[in-house]
Amino acid sequence: MASIEMIEAARDRLVGRVRRTPLLSSPFLDGLAGRRVLVKPECLQHTGSFKFRGAWSAISHIAPDVRSRGVIAFSSGNHAQGVALAAKLHGIPSVIVMPADAPRIKVENTRAYGAEVVLYDRATEDRDAIGGRISQERGLTLVRPFDDPLVIAGQGTVGLEIVEQAAEEGVDAADVIVPTGGGGFASGIALALEAKAPGLRVRTCEPEGFDDVARSLAAGRIERNSSQTGSICDAIVTPQPGNLTFPILSRLCGPGRVVTDREALRAVALAFQRLKIVVEPGGAVALAAALSRGEALGDTVIAVVSGGNVDSDVFAEALRQNP
Amino acid sequence: MASIEMIEAARDRLVGRVRRTPLLSSPFLDGLAGRRVLVKPECLQHTGSFKFRGAWSAISHIAPDVRSRGVIAFSSGNHAQGVALAAKLHGIPSVIVMPADAPRIKVENTRAYGAEVVLYDRATEDRDAIGGRISQERGLTLVRPFDDPLVIAGQGTVGLEIVEQAAEEGVDAADVIVPTGGGGFASGIALALEAKAPGLRVRTCEPEGFDDVARSLAAGRIERNSSQTGSICDAIVTPQPGNLTFPILSRLCGPGRVVTDREALRAVALAFQRLKIVVEPGGAVALAAALSRGEALGDTVIAVVSGGNVDSDVFAEALRQNP
Repeated sequence: MASIEMIEAARDRLVGRVRRTPLLSSPFLDGLAGRRVLVKPECLQHTGSFKFRGAWSAISHIAPDVRSRGVIAFSSGNHAQGVALAAKLHGIPSVIVMPADAPRIKVENTRAYGAEVVLYDRATEDRDAIGGRISQERGLTLVRPFDDPLVIAGQGTVGLEIVEQAAEEGVDAADVIVPTGGGGFASGIALALEAKAPGLRVRTCEPEGFDDVARSLAAGRIERNSSQTGSICDAIVTPQPGNLTFPILSRLCGPGRVVTDREALRAVALAFQRLKIVVEPGGAVALAAALSRGEALGDTVIAVVSGGNVDSDVFAEALRQNP
Repeated sequence: MASIEMIEAARDRLVGRVRRTPLLSSPFLDGLAGRRVLVKPECLQHTGSFKFRGAWSAISHIAPDVRSRGVIAFSSGNHAQGVALAAKLHGIPSVIVMPADAPRIKVENTRAYGAEVVLYDRATEDRDAIGGRISQERGLTLVRPFDDPLVIAGQGTVGLEIVEQAAEEGVDAADVIVPTGGGGFASGIALALEAKAPGLRVRTCEPEGFDDVARSLAAGRIERNSSQTGSICDAIVTPQPGNLTFPILSRLCGPGRVVTDREALRAVALAFQRLKIVVEPGGAVALAAALSRGEALGDTVIAVVSGGNVDSDVFAEALRQNP
């Protein structure tokens, strides 16, 4: 069961390994949103997403004699890179099970970090079954993408940084919008804020048509997405919220936010123009919500950017559509 | 005369106003360069470039009764935005004299920060004469782009951050490559490093064909560029090094580096892909030198990125040329 104590322990294991990302802002974005917008750019984290935090938290906690056999993970790309790099820095092998339609840069980078990549068909194959079989065969430890207390704790270290940086900015009340797939990132941040800055409240954000978390929060029970493909926000499309993450989200987060692909691409372009950061569409949904879906938000919004691993043609198209 | 004491005083005036930019890196860039490459991304600074530091340093030092009449500056764009925002935050008017061929985003942003923009023809008109006339007419204080001790001191605050961050990374010897126009940025950083981390040595970097600083350093006297137009690195094309900056550069910097526009655009694309930051071509020359011009560089290079104010079509073209 993830807790603030586990998050603080993860932070201690991550010291000197994780990058403390800054808090960014632009008067132009404040003007567009009609409120103060602070942006936490985890695209600047090692491997280009927050996932390195959870991967390091989990791998650094495995007993050394077990860890030496290696780790396995399944991921659309960002968790893959985080696990691959954390494994490499621990000097152990890693196998990453990835969907065949993941962005090219993510597959290439995962291989470049030293991982063995196993591709599968997102529409017809079950990644959990594939991952479980290989991990049994080789004695690998499975590093889950979100439904693991150690992974949730690692992602929650972003929440501890937000607490400190919001205080430096004089902010003691804000909506903290978090791009949400399986809910590991949002639930980790929510636990950190609950303990350290209860005036800051997490709101999940998802792409339209893949809003399993928003529907689950509304229904009070876990709901599934009907499809796993068709969103440009590939990084945060997951079948359903996790069995560990959903109770945390349900207890601590308000109603979930949903944005369109078009709104996400506009946020990608505005982050380019106004913040000088590279954000992938799925990583931009919280900023999109801050800019385009202001209803029921307070005077200050902290939009978390989850990742920046975007192919250059998608990025150029976002700029072309939003000159 | 700029000095370490003036830089430390500028830092004190900038506390809570300037953003402390992180130090970034990527194993992919280390591999390309064949050495450790650390990147100081001042594109993430307010207004998208380091220029906000020098502008705030100068404007915050003007006597209040004089300052209230306003300030004037001439700039291809980044100094313009830095002065415009620093003036706005001081609650005073600003007039910015800009070349008519400056990137559109820079002109628009300067106006959006509340400045009055006066355009001139870079090939046929003398911006110093235009700036001098308007400042006399309205009683405005001229904020020079580089040849002013207070501006040099403000830019030097980046050097103080580099000193601290290099120490955190265990680096006590490195080449610190700095994109160089008139030399205010490079000379300020060089003064800070001389006083606080003498194992770190500044090297200037310029675009091919506009290498007035490199030629001046080689000749031991100030040399001019034959042209002011024709480089994609608009941010760092200036007629010649300054009368105040050149003696500092000459005393503290090794031979100047020069890169091609093509190398600068490749660095723009690699910063997109590997660091998730948006860099303008002129701001990317130091990273380009680290990646493409390794001769006579040591084991560790710190490449300073000076700015990120690039039009989206130029950025998309850099990505297209470097897939």
